Amino acid sequence: MTGANDMNFNEKLNSVILKKKHYLCIGLDPDPGKMPVHLNREANPFLIFIKEVVNATKDLVIAYKANEAFFQSAGSDGYSALECIKTNIPEDVFFILDGKKGDIGNTASKYAGAAYDQYKADAVTVNPYMGYDAVKPFISRPEKGAFILTLTSNPSAADFQYLRSSNQPVYMHVANKVNEWNQNNNCGLVVGATKPDELAEIRKLTPGLPFLVPGVGAQGGDLNRVLINGCDINKTGILINVGRDIIYCDNSFKFANKVRERALFYISEMQKNW
Amino acid sequence: MTGANDMNFNEKLNSVILKKKHYLCIGLDPDPGKMPVHLNREANPFLIFIKEVVNATKDLVIAYKANEAFFQSAGSDGYSALECIKTNIPEDVFFILDGKKGDIGNTASKYAGAAYDQYKADAVTVNPYMGYDAVKPFISRPEKGAFILTLTSNPSAADFQYLRSSNQPVYMHVANKVNEWNQNNNCGLVVGATKPDELAEIRKLTPGLPFLVPGVGAQGGDLNRVLINGCDINKTGILINVGRDIIYCDNSFKFANKVRERALFYISEMQKNW
Repeated sequence: MTGANDMNFNEKLNSVILKKKHYLCIGLDPDPGKMPVHLNREANPFLIFIKEVVNATKDLVIAYKANEAFFQSAGSDGYSALECIKTNIPEDVFFILDGKKGDIGNTASKYAGAAYDQYKADAVTVNPYMGYDAVKPFISRPEKGAFILTLTSNPSAADFQYLRSSNQPVYMHVANKVNEWNQNNNCGLVVGATKPDELAEIRKLTPGLPFLVPGVGAQGGDLNRVLINGCDINKTGILINVGRDIIYCDNSFKFANKVRERALFYISEMQKNW
Repeated sequence: MTGANDMNFNEKLNSVILKKKHYLCIGLDPDPGKMPVHLNREANPFLIFIKEVVNATKDLVIAYKANEAFFQSAGSDGYSALECIKTNIPEDVFFILDGKKGDIGNTASKYAGAAYDQYKADAVTVNPYMGYDAVKPFISRPEKGAFILTLTSNPSAADFQYLRSSNQPVYMHVANKVNEWNQNNNCGLVVGATKPDELAEIRKLTPGLPFLVPGVGAQGGDLNRVLINGCDINKTGILINVGRDIIYCDNSFKFANKVRERALFYISEMQKNW
């Protein structure tokens, strides 16, 4: 019998999506200026905030995406918080470390080791500019996944991602390469929610590959269009990241309850498509 | 009178190059497996290694480039070592934090804050894939510089950097944008030493902008060709990074002396061009 541990990352992700019937990934961007003020009395407000958010939602979500910059800027407090995430969530919830790394050789191997061994991440985000050398160390373990930046949700994505070469924009060249690199069935793509037409175009080119989609919620992407244009066969293959709109929805002592309610709202919106 | 503190990053860098008449930047990639074994007796071998290398060379070099991955993988020991660099070097030596960050908005601002305020870096490396949004927070302070990845020295740079759009490869589009972004005279470019012809092509397009050039030494780039093709007017505008070939040139108790000798060798090679 094949257990969850024998599955590659993409198979395992889709099996959890099919089980839970939604796509919610909560973005953990812990910002001391936005966290409930009463947490400031704690020795490590950072750690308490993350634990409260995770404990309030870990039976619900598909994944957490931790934005490394926010943890890094809190120094050792931030790193303790980052180390606690995987140990506090069930086996069927994924932990994605969002560092957008893009370096080569032993540097990339060091980053991959830190992500997968030190922080126990299940997947990472990777920047493709340096090509395959920069991606390879992150996709050598079939059970660990890498989401490669393909088309981002920010306005200046146009600077380079939309340059046309051989009648295709650069982001489609990236999507093509991700198809090639997917030998272990553990590659995915980061595609912004603010570009639904391009999302459909990339979906056609990359059947079987999961998308990590930021930009719903605070950034204004349309959830329904994202799901219609981005879902793979059998309604699988997509993770919708919502950060600020969930984790900072309340500042009171009961913020964790409100965070749970807000997560449930997004899940119910997503389940309308099933 | 205009002091060094009123200068923008590129002016200040060139003034130091003209004073010292060479281009040596030592790459700090501290790898516990390659460091002299006797350091293992120390409480923080990492910190001692960095301090010994820096103390043996800080009166000589133009800059140090710290590869963030190596420091990060050592946890808190690594971060203490990173924090000690700027406080241990003279005012006219630059500290470049090589993290190749590429993210947007408040995430990029967090990374910039960590680099410039926490680690006191004078400059950083940045990945251009997400466009101007990802670069802006790193170039808003004129005295702090950003070297933007343009053409890298690794083989799979060809995957995307050489795609042609409007009769120019993507790396030339990046170089064009860096020219545009250089409103504070604090933008530079990362161009690999293994591509001397392309280096000359990029130099023609970006007069006045400094290059950070990895790939001489262990990676086999030709120092003379790099200097001939990459120098700007008045022999300025270039930093040559040499890492492993200097910092791991010896494993004995006297490694710091050997590191100094090796640095002096590279400096004398560079000064043959003056």
